[in-house]
Amino acid sequence: MRIARFSIDGNVAFGAVEGDKPDELVLDIIKGIPFADFELSGTKVPLSKVRLLPPVLPNKVVAFGRNYAEHAKELGNEVPDAPFAFFKPSTSVIGTGDEIQYPSFSSELHHEAELAVVIGRMCREVPRERVKDVILGYTCANDVTARDVQKREKQWARAKGFDNSCPLGPWVETDLDLAAIAEGITIQCTVNGAQRQLGRTSEMIHSVEDLIVNITEAMTLLPGDVILTGTPAGVGPLNVGDEVAVTIEGIGTLTNKVIKRG
Amino acid sequence: MRIARFSIDGNVAFGAVEGDKPDELVLDIIKGIPFADFELSGTKVPLSKVRLLPPVLPNKVVAFGRNYAEHAKELGNEVPDAPFAFFKPSTSVIGTGDEIQYPSFSSELHHEAELAVVIGRMCREVPRERVKDVILGYTCANDVTARDVQKREKQWARAKGFDNSCPLGPWVETDLDLAAIAEGITIQCTVNGAQRQLGRTSEMIHSVEDLIVNITEAMTLLPGDVILTGTPAGVGPLNVGDEVAVTIEGIGTLTNKVIKRG
Repeated sequence: MRIARFSIDGNVAFGAVEGDKPDELVLDIIKGIPFADFELSGTKVPLSKVRLLPPVLPNKVVAFGRNYAEHAKELGNEVPDAPFAFFKPSTSVIGTGDEIQYPSFSSELHHEAELAVVIGRMCREVPRERVKDVILGYTCANDVTARDVQKREKQWARAKGFDNSCPLGPWVETDLDLAAIAEGITIQCTVNGAQRQLGRTSEMIHSVEDLIVNITEAMTLLPGDVILTGTPAGVGPLNVGDEVAVTIEGIGTLTNKVIKRG
Repeated sequence: MRIARFSIDGNVAFGAVEGDKPDELVLDIIKGIPFADFELSGTKVPLSKVRLLPPVLPNKVVAFGRNYAEHAKELGNEVPDAPFAFFKPSTSVIGTGDEIQYPSFSSELHHEAELAVVIGRMCREVPRERVKDVILGYTCANDVTARDVQKREKQWARAKGFDNSCPLGPWVETDLDLAAIAEGITIQCTVNGAQRQLGRTSEMIHSVEDLIVNITEAMTLLPGDVILTGTPAGVGPLNVGDEVAVTIEGIGTLTNKVIKRG
């Protein structure tokens, strides 16, 4: 099931996305919230009539660095032995169709297309065999990075945590599973239609299971928290006016335009 | 005014702390929340009858590294030219009297006593002369750190973001001002009554104004967000059974016991 979050007539709702043709998608409005047992209401609205919101409002986004060897190498970095994580705050999250505002303190903005894992239940110290039980589903993410600031500042709160630096969407796909991700699904990033990044999740150094075991060894994850699993090679600049799109096989496409901060 | 957050009969409330003798403090319960106009109810309860909670529930804690030269040197680090920030997540926050659980993935836990700034209103791109307007007040913080993990992992999400790693309290003091902090108030940390850290806020390399200008250049702060301003020299180990206390002149004392994670 594809679960979208959207606003309609000033209210926020979740809905199940139905249909195959991009222009004819329909939302069946969910009664309740997707983090508990819920039912479809049967009330349907065309997706074209609503504004999609970020599919979840995370308490925290935990992002892992250098989880694709080719990407680590392209930036001249060593491939780390163990995963390492950083945070993107909730104030950085936007949805598909929202605008990435070019920050005033950077002149080298980069896209980083990533598979995002959406946590479905509160959890801590998750054993490997239970990882599947704490996942609600998957969405597309763009770990937008001020590369120049990242090079200058030892910790990346500003370089990767600025407002609008965490596009998520367009919805949460709950039917993907860990086996399919291990086998490999395609992650693609285009800028103005031209391909920039192309990778497969099978290239991850540390699996989704590894990452969730690693982070929950230290901290509690809450429903709606998001794990970013690293970006494949091909990162590159974003400029004002660019349209950047992250497409993940079996999920969909997350599209954002870069604008000048007004 | 000292504003505490507490639970009483299963409800959460804010109260103004009245009195001078530690054993005779009284809370005048606040009508409304301290982030908007509020009144004191006149209904008073002895502080000894309630459980103090973290004085705010931050959406995010932004912490600055190496903001006291002597501390940077004691760990063999250079003093950075510009401030750099990292996040501690909301799931790391505990209050005074709560227990610090020694994490399973570390064997070198350290205390770091810090002055915490509590943000009072939503803000972004705050000019230096407006910084005072976005601050609700100040509290004590302990930026508890898994030093061994910090050395191993390039980004500090696990080393400084684990559950219970951000004690805050005992309350928010709204009467301190930026001039007093620039002139210097004392920050002290004791472990089992023995002094470990002693510094003055006048030793900060980057002032509170600098830090808030720096972070809001990149991101929106929300009411209740917390800024940690760095730790003075003297950091050292915490062991199971230790009682660690952070005392800041004009604010109060934040006390936590270290326990084995059960």
